[in-house]
Amino acid sequence: MGAAATRALDAGGEPGDGADVAVYTDIAEQDLESFLAGFDVGRPITFKGIAEGVENSNFLLETEAGRFILTVYERRVRRDELPFFLDLLSWLAAHGFPSATPIPDRQGRTLGVLNDKPAALVTFLPGLSVRRPDTARCREAGEGLAWLHQAAQGFSGRRANDLGQPAWGRMFAPLARAADALKPGLAPVIRADLDELEAVWPRGLPEGIAHADYFPDNVFFLGGKFAGAIDFYFAAWDALAYDVGVALNAWCFEPDGGFNVTKAGAFLSGYRRRRELDEAELAALPVLARGAAMRFFLTRLADWGATPPGSLVRPKDPLEYERKLAIHREGLALIGLGA
Amino acid sequence: MGAAATRALDAGGEPGDGADVAVYTDIAEQDLESFLAGFDVGRPITFKGIAEGVENSNFLLETEAGRFILTVYERRVRRDELPFFLDLLSWLAAHGFPSATPIPDRQGRTLGVLNDKPAALVTFLPGLSVRRPDTARCREAGEGLAWLHQAAQGFSGRRANDLGQPAWGRMFAPLARAADALKPGLAPVIRADLDELEAVWPRGLPEGIAHADYFPDNVFFLGGKFAGAIDFYFAAWDALAYDVGVALNAWCFEPDGGFNVTKAGAFLSGYRRRRELDEAELAALPVLARGAAMRFFLTRLADWGATPPGSLVRPKDPLEYERKLAIHREGLALIGLGA
Repeated sequence: MGAAATRALDAGGEPGDGADVAVYTDIAEQDLESFLAGFDVGRPITFKGIAEGVENSNFLLETEAGRFILTVYERRVRRDELPFFLDLLSWLAAHGFPSATPIPDRQGRTLGVLNDKPAALVTFLPGLSVRRPDTARCREAGEGLAWLHQAAQGFSGRRANDLGQPAWGRMFAPLARAADALKPGLAPVIRADLDELEAVWPRGLPEGIAHADYFPDNVFFLGGKFAGAIDFYFAAWDALAYDVGVALNAWCFEPDGGFNVTKAGAFLSGYRRRRELDEAELAALPVLARGAAMRFFLTRLADWGATPPGSLVRPKDPLEYERKLAIHREGLALIGLGA
Repeated sequence: MGAAATRALDAGGEPGDGADVAVYTDIAEQDLESFLAGFDVGRPITFKGIAEGVENSNFLLETEAGRFILTVYERRVRRDELPFFLDLLSWLAAHGFPSATPIPDRQGRTLGVLNDKPAALVTFLPGLSVRRPDTARCREAGEGLAWLHQAAQGFSGRRANDLGQPAWGRMFAPLARAADALKPGLAPVIRADLDELEAVWPRGLPEGIAHADYFPDNVFFLGGKFAGAIDFYFAAWDALAYDVGVALNAWCFEPDGGFNVTKAGAFLSGYRRRRELDEAELAALPVLARGAAMRFFLTRLADWGATPPGSLVRPKDPLEYERKLAIHREGLALIGLGA
């Protein structure tokens, strides 16, 4: 039944910048039919593996009832956390945020099984992601993130951010040698960063559901306007301004490594159209963005070391985030922003 | 702009049985917009890399005007042959055969350039391919192939089959060592096959445009009925019954390696609903199918040897076709079929 995309799995979760790799798995027509028999969506008309999402296999499915994305969850997503993610998506859609909505089966369940793996059917979300967002799209993306934060308010599901600041020291411990192998002398620098981040990490900021992987590939636009977000599989309870920090790193660095403060300003002003950032949040942004750079550096470093030579998975370069981290360390990015 | 699937390139061209691999390349939004500006299709609404086709990158593109497949041709397709393929698709669609139709740009050209590569926009063809076709679908697929052969009649384009029988000896010459490495003693067996195929290869059979890669992944069904064919990038002028031989190998072997004569009978009876096979064609089928097995064995063997260790491309197993070839060599497949 065609081949289906299983994107290269990387613990970091951010989708592809530059060349990426996918491993294909097949879904037999009988298995698809059995799965769909549980839903009230009619017969399939189109079924194609698509290159979207990094933690799972995604298929574009058109049936007599409309268009959907069928997601088959791969090993990186913990099965017991799936209800949180699916409930969050249902909540967001019910509260007006443009995200894919899980389709319940005839028994009201949004989580099913396909090929012995957890699987879910969600609505198709139109829109296009942008590889190199311009300033206008950074503004739109910022507003979209605030919208997401607002729409998630009241959602009762909870998931701790297992890739948040308290975890970084533990994550780095087995990676010190890999850091030095990547760049001689890097391990003590990272250790000092971790100590400093631990010491100055802001507490008491407004918390809520953070997307935690709000990269350009996970945001859709239509005619230059924000049209929705996808790939919520890192969503967790955290400081909302930390989510802004993750996004500033993902949206506002230029390919040459420089931080584009105009785009950052646009992102923040877009965000503040929907949700105000208080003084403590604005003051915390430099350290939050530095921490966010640490988080993606660490997961990329872990993937780098864990990928055997000759593997079919090509890990993302940890040095990209090492450079972002260095810029934040020097205080060369978020200076006087939004104050 | 999202990531886009470039399927693993393999000279054989047949799409994935079993796990497959794709390499992703990106298309920047500006590049897509420049490309689309040449067409009268409105603005993009959805753009997703899809896992379809092995010789090129395919994207599902929805615009204000409808749904399309955008194909970016990769290195394996010769640029000077693209007009033949696109003209063939236009001809087939104009003559009622369900295939993707190239969309001309404002200047009437169907072949454009995107990311410095040849690219074309074609209509979206609904339908689902089937990984393990049942007997009923083999019948439908057979009828579809005859339909294709009939619809192509009168098309004036010509392309010699550079992977046809006259080429096999030349293709094998540099691969003899690889054959012996794959299976000790195989090279002399293949050489004897090639001599025998050369000696008994049927001449004077009805010729026309052959798809030449009519595998289940390239055929769509809707509600169990034939709904169209894709991936014409091996199409060439050849004996039409040779195309049937390729298809019998692709559709009628079971996963355990056995040839399912019931499915073969169904394929042929479906074919003959649309186009009669004359006595000479029926008599030639065993040797044509044997030759077709040789053709896919040879291209798989070439890919096997050409793939460096640790490559991101996982070549298909040449032994699958070596086994099919052995079954044809022993005359254990097409016995008294359709006679």
